Amino acid sequence: MESSGPPAEDILLQRPWLPVSISGCQLLTKSWFGETAYRVLLTDMHCVWEERMDAAAIQSRAQELNRRLRAPVKAFFSHLCDVAQPCLSADRGPPQNEAQISLTRQEDGDILMRLKSELAGLPFYWEFHCTPAPITLACSQLVRPLLAMSRLLQQQVEQLAGLLVRKDAEIQDYRENGATLSRERLQTDAFEEQTYKENFMAKALPLLWTERQDALGFDADLQQLYAAVVHRSARKRKLSEDRCEEEEEEEEEDRPAPALTSPPGAPDRLCPPEPADRDPHPTHVRQEDTSGAKMADRPTVQQHQSRPAASERPSSRPKKKKVGLFG
Amino acid sequence: MESSGPPAEDILLQRPWLPVSISGCQLLTKSWFGETAYRVLLTDMHCVWEERMDAAAIQSRAQELNRRLRAPVKAFFSHLCDVAQPCLSADRGPPQNEAQISLTRQEDGDILMRLKSELAGLPFYWEFHCTPAPITLACSQLVRPLLAMSRLLQQQVEQLAGLLVRKDAEIQDYRENGATLSRERLQTDAFEEQTYKENFMAKALPLLWTERQDALGFDADLQQLYAAVVHRSARKRKLSEDRCEEEEEEEEEDRPAPALTSPPGAPDRLCPPEPADRDPHPTHVRQEDTSGAKMADRPTVQQHQSRPAASERPSSRPKKKKVGLFG
Repeated sequence: MESSGPPAEDILLQRPWLPVSISGCQLLTKSWFGETAYRVLLTDMHCVWEERMDAAAIQSRAQELNRRLRAPVKAFFSHLCDVAQPCLSADRGPPQNEAQISLTRQEDGDILMRLKSELAGLPFYWEFHCTPAPITLACSQLVRPLLAMSRLLQQQVEQLAGLLVRKDAEIQDYRENGATLSRERLQTDAFEEQTYKENFMAKALPLLWTERQDALGFDADLQQLYAAVVHRSARKRKLSEDRCEEEEEEEEEDRPAPALTSPPGAPDRLCPPEPADRDPHPTHVRQEDTSGAKMADRPTVQQHQSRPAASERPSSRPKKKKVGLFG
Repeated sequence: MESSGPPAEDILLQRPWLPVSISGCQLLTKSWFGETAYRVLLTDMHCVWEERMDAAAIQSRAQELNRRLRAPVKAFFSHLCDVAQPCLSADRGPPQNEAQISLTRQEDGDILMRLKSELAGLPFYWEFHCTPAPITLACSQLVRPLLAMSRLLQQQVEQLAGLLVRKDAEIQDYRENGATLSRERLQTDAFEEQTYKENFMAKALPLLWTERQDALGFDADLQQLYAAVVHRSARKRKLSEDRCEEEEEEEEEDRPAPALTSPPGAPDRLCPPEPADRDPHPTHVRQEDTSGAKMADRPTVQQHQSRPAASERPSSRPKKKKVGLFG
């Protein structure tokens, strides 16, 4: 459990996307469990869902799901971490602990994951209510890393193709000087990049969207590259934040480091234009459908805060025999 | 202009992300202009914005921005296409036509692009009001293609590394049989994949987030690969839709083809679990912050529909001299 240090955003960025299979559904997950808070990300590569919960929200939900629970959040949160984390990182079924997890896709597009475990001899229920994440989160956790990975891999392909051409030149020289192979099967064809790529694509493309893929196609090699790319991104971002404290925190939240070598307002970041000196132009016309706009800056979920914490709340029911955390 | 054929979603998917620079801001855009409708996508890789407009919304906005315009949407829409499309696909400044375009990032995170051109001798104004897109759109237009591209490039790296090892075996055989090079500079070092990758990453990673990138890093080679990948995806999807007409349209909207070789409910698609046979469990507990959930299914924007079309609307102002489309 992390309770201090870098913000959850950076910690999540540096985590791998772990393949999980819950109720027969393949997902990739990232999660962060703090001292009395957590964030969970899920994706099936068609949508990304998340849940952000703080102490008050956790306390409230725990109370609703476990009527007899009379403990403050700290007292049961470590149990929740212990049972939930393996469920969100295991590739095959439930882990060694007794927790059971199931997943339902709600009609409104949300994801509901129900967890049942045992705490102090009584059943302990939990639910993760994951809603579609802001699009900026998909950009920071998937789009930018994947684009960076593609660039790196593209560079490797170019370098390796260049190396092959050099190997061919060496081979050509041996051959022209009369060298022969002791084993004919060692002979290779001259490498021609364009032909290679065309043949590769002709074979690979038909399989691209039809093959069954482990981890939704995010395989081990790509995971490794993702880790390298996001580690670098988070490090750069840290450096950048130390240097540019005046930058808006809101803008930075889901961004990797701005280019350190770029001047302020360099065109790789979206910037407001210079004041318009054009003809008068109506500016009051605003698009009325802004439902999407709210997502980008969605604050940390803080539900049920008006409800008093269980530890402070007088129980209206007669207390049963005290069993650990449950009253 | 496309007026029939595949839906805008597929057409957009198959379009490249075009680099544009508006008001000094680097963006990638995709746009589709139909007969009297359009969709525009923008991204700076930190967010994706979109605007979807139909005939009624276009008519209404044109009316608000151009008070003297008295033409039905069809009469001026082709002009809008003519001037807007080059602005959304040009890499350098305004195109040959006289249109001026500027971009402002709104405080609420939206993007406002203002366009000014000349129609029938009078100024013609337009505005694109782009709001953050549903996260499913980022997944379909960026995440899945980029992941597929990464997989293909990773496969190429592996194949080329394998070819290099074979070249080395051939070279080794020549050398062991006493062959020598006529030019020493042709000699290459034996290729060792792990060492190569480590060296590559040591050099490439420090530059990854600091180098200035054209087209936000989505360079020509990657564009080409993107085109190949999404073309395949759209084709597969078409085939799939023909076969599985009973599938929910809503689910399909932003998806590429489901794996044709997978059984129904195969784990690469998110599916509801079997009915829970677990203990009674409160199901009425719903997370209250569902602001994000609305995005995934945001319908086509249809603002201002109650306002009558300009062609049917009696003008309360005395008519000026008729100049083309303007009354």
